[in-house]
Amino acid sequence: MALTVVGSIAFDAVKTPFGERERMLGGAATHFALAASFFDEVRVVGPVGDDFADSDMAILATRGTSTDDVERVAGGKTFFWAGEYGWDLNSRETLDTQLGVFETFEPKLSQASREAEVLFLANIQPDLQRSVREQCEEARFVALDSMNLWIDIARDSLVRTISQVDCVILNDAELRQLTEKPNLVQAARAVREMGPDVVIAKQGEYGAVLITEGTFFALPAYPLETVVDPTGAGDTFAGGFVGYLSRHSADGLDDAVLRRAMAYGTALASYNVEEFGTERVARLTPAEIGERVADLERITRFEDAPIELRA
Amino acid sequence: MALTVVGSIAFDAVKTPFGERERMLGGAATHFALAASFFDEVRVVGPVGDDFADSDMAILATRGTSTDDVERVAGGKTFFWAGEYGWDLNSRETLDTQLGVFETFEPKLSQASREAEVLFLANIQPDLQRSVREQCEEARFVALDSMNLWIDIARDSLVRTISQVDCVILNDAELRQLTEKPNLVQAARAVREMGPDVVIAKQGEYGAVLITEGTFFALPAYPLETVVDPTGAGDTFAGGFVGYLSRHSADGLDDAVLRRAMAYGTALASYNVEEFGTERVARLTPAEIGERVADLERITRFEDAPIELRA
Repeated sequence: MALTVVGSIAFDAVKTPFGERERMLGGAATHFALAASFFDEVRVVGPVGDDFADSDMAILATRGTSTDDVERVAGGKTFFWAGEYGWDLNSRETLDTQLGVFETFEPKLSQASREAEVLFLANIQPDLQRSVREQCEEARFVALDSMNLWIDIARDSLVRTISQVDCVILNDAELRQLTEKPNLVQAARAVREMGPDVVIAKQGEYGAVLITEGTFFALPAYPLETVVDPTGAGDTFAGGFVGYLSRHSADGLDDAVLRRAMAYGTALASYNVEEFGTERVARLTPAEIGERVADLERITRFEDAPIELRA
Repeated sequence: MALTVVGSIAFDAVKTPFGERERMLGGAATHFALAASFFDEVRVVGPVGDDFADSDMAILATRGTSTDDVERVAGGKTFFWAGEYGWDLNSRETLDTQLGVFETFEPKLSQASREAEVLFLANIQPDLQRSVREQCEEARFVALDSMNLWIDIARDSLVRTISQVDCVILNDAELRQLTEKPNLVQAARAVREMGPDVVIAKQGEYGAVLITEGTFFALPAYPLETVVDPTGAGDTFAGGFVGYLSRHSADGLDDAVLRRAMAYGTALASYNVEEFGTERVARLTPAEIGERVADLERITRFEDAPIELRA
């Protein structure tokens, strides 16, 4: 089994109250692949420029991730994003975006990438996401991320793309914007009526919620004393979540598997934000992931006991 | 065993996207008592004016709550608050506050109220909270709520009061403001260093977190399709939480009890917001509370399973 991801590979300049990096490896596909590769073989599809170094490519290829479909555009520049976070890390300002090779990106998947059983469409223009979706005819589980920009300027295309996927992973504010429903339960139902069976609302420092026809499962974020750089947390979460499902896709994705996938995504995202960019996840170990999943079980568990209430 | 609460008894005018009420029974002590009285005998301490009707007093006295220490101030007016909520109910604007009888309130507790083993200091001026705290010498467990106003204008007094209680229940934004620490784990530690063993961060629609020396427990809010009026949710949560602890205070407040108390508070708060003011909780049944606590167990539970991660 293999898992294909299409999305941005980027250089990021990030400033937070705890430090800054002028140029580091980033991008949704990068963060996703680093996380998902703990679970399954990953194939990355996306463009880079001449400025993309072999050392960057080596990080992308961690744990055997295939970079065969990483298109190196001659004379092109790798996507660049610069942003700055506020004191509580919950607000961020984009300072610069240079699309570079992404401006003319048309995803062309190799036969191997097309044959993936699981596909993740990271946040790119929804027409491109749909073109990839249509190239992967055998995919049994397709998940999608997006952002407020596409809801603003390409909503119809985004809704068409959503109708062709199994799972939508969005920030809760984006879910509200997309559906124009302020209530999360209603917003998730509206997205499920577009087609997908599974809706995930990412809630930043508060965690994430999974909603299917029969299930509502809420998981808090892992409590951290030090958050250094939230960039890529959502894509790392998606990598853990979709990666876990890819590994288990042959067994059928029942409720228990979906919940565990949420826990692995949450554990991975918690490591991602402890250092800048890919720094922490690049050297993460399986044992460390397991520790935080076990912690999350303890953090969330309670058991009711009989009590006679006064009436 | 009995539980004493001191705090506001009020009339509220509330407008939300789903309707409005021009004048309804409200106030922190009211919401708290309605919830806590499911668990234990409650005694309410607070002032009202001539305008406070017998029918209002009857609601306050639901489930045998003692109103002996509700002081009716001749010629006075009951505390009045008017507010309006935004479309997603997460923002609210105060339109009017008339302190009325609260302007000259000096809490005088009867012997019975002083003898309470458990005490809740709802959000009032911190000097008054401390005066009540000092009158209740036998209290074994004292919890406190506050608000941004007191952090702004009476921080030193608030910190002194906090140093004399066992549990602080604040919104997470207030915890951050009080401690000037944007990180919740650090903020909770800073509050615990002021004295209390237990810190609860209320997170509105995202739920609540309990932090003690050895425990971090996060519980989501109960997922609702319809939220009509969030007013009093925090006090209803506190009523369920402190009420549950009051009922179990003789057994010792171990981790499992604290977690269950969080679940009961959360379940009660979820009912509170489904209708205006006290309307829903006033006719709530024990069976309904039990149902939502059981739901919360299902909503939050996952179990890890062995998996060999790729390295």
